[in-house]
Amino acid sequence: MTRIVMGIDPGFSITGFSIVASEQGGRIVLRDCGGFTMSRSLTLAQRITLFHHFFDAKIVEHSVNVVALETPFLGKNAQNFLKLGYLRGMLYFLHDRHQTLLLEFSPREVKQTLTGFGAADKDQVARFVLRLFPSLRVPNSYDVTDAIAVSLCGLWHKAYVTAK
Amino acid sequence: MTRIVMGIDPGFSITGFSIVASEQGGRIVLRDCGGFTMSRSLTLAQRITLFHHFFDAKIVEHSVNVVALETPFLGKNAQNFLKLGYLRGMLYFLHDRHQTLLLEFSPREVKQTLTGFGAADKDQVARFVLRLFPSLRVPNSYDVTDAIAVSLCGLWHKAYVTAK
Repeated sequence: MTRIVMGIDPGFSITGFSIVASEQGGRIVLRDCGGFTMSRSLTLAQRITLFHHFFDAKIVEHSVNVVALETPFLGKNAQNFLKLGYLRGMLYFLHDRHQTLLLEFSPREVKQTLTGFGAADKDQVARFVLRLFPSLRVPNSYDVTDAIAVSLCGLWHKAYVTAK
Repeated sequence: MTRIVMGIDPGFSITGFSIVASEQGGRIVLRDCGGFTMSRSLTLAQRITLFHHFFDAKIVEHSVNVVALETPFLGKNAQNFLKLGYLRGMLYFLHDRHQTLLLEFSPREVKQTLTGFGAADKDQVARFVLRLFPSLRVPNSYDVTDAIAVSLCGLWHKAYVTAK
């Protein structure tokens, strides 16, 4: 079964996302990627709903069967951590509805997998990603390259995708 | 328009909930209340889905038009705070889908509204609730009385429910 992985780096200002698949012969194809933004003029609840609908549609459109996330850590702002939970909760919900596999990786695992160095910085991760996909336009922020990185971890992870 | 308020105190071990309405003549009716629990044998995602379905059905069954929540504060465990976000995200999502009003109250506001004393303890809140609804069987935990308390705040809050 072809593994089609959606990597997501969720956030209320921008959510980086990436959909990768390994085709026959082992070639890795970047099917979609981008930064999803939501207007600040919407209420929190409207943005949560929009987020849900956007990624629900992406899963269906690309027949995603693995959702890959990075484990979050509490930053300076506890309320932002709680709000991140609102978006992550939606991804759990979508994973369950569409019966995908859900894989979570620590930031260190992601860096280690991509660069061979667990303490690599975001720029090193981005450079690896851009080397793998030379046709990718260099994004303005690391959100997209971070999402591509976590989607690649999902692709290369040893766990078998159980057919549903 | 009759205000029908669902108060919820969400948690992965137990979610206290309460549905109250003010009927003609100002009488307050407790339409439903309880502690919703989810088996630990389910995955986190399955529990989030179950939580969504349970409260989706409650909103429809009782024609709830106000959802009332208590503002959470970061406790000792940051990961539990994040997980609380998963459940709260679902409530935002349901509020938006069903176009209810969403009201949030600080713990202090809830205690102040019910007992007249912002630093009241949970037992004082519970005693007020039991005095208001004498037929209520004394619950084993404060989850249910806390949820009733927040639903009453939603009922007494001055904001008008805008007709949708």
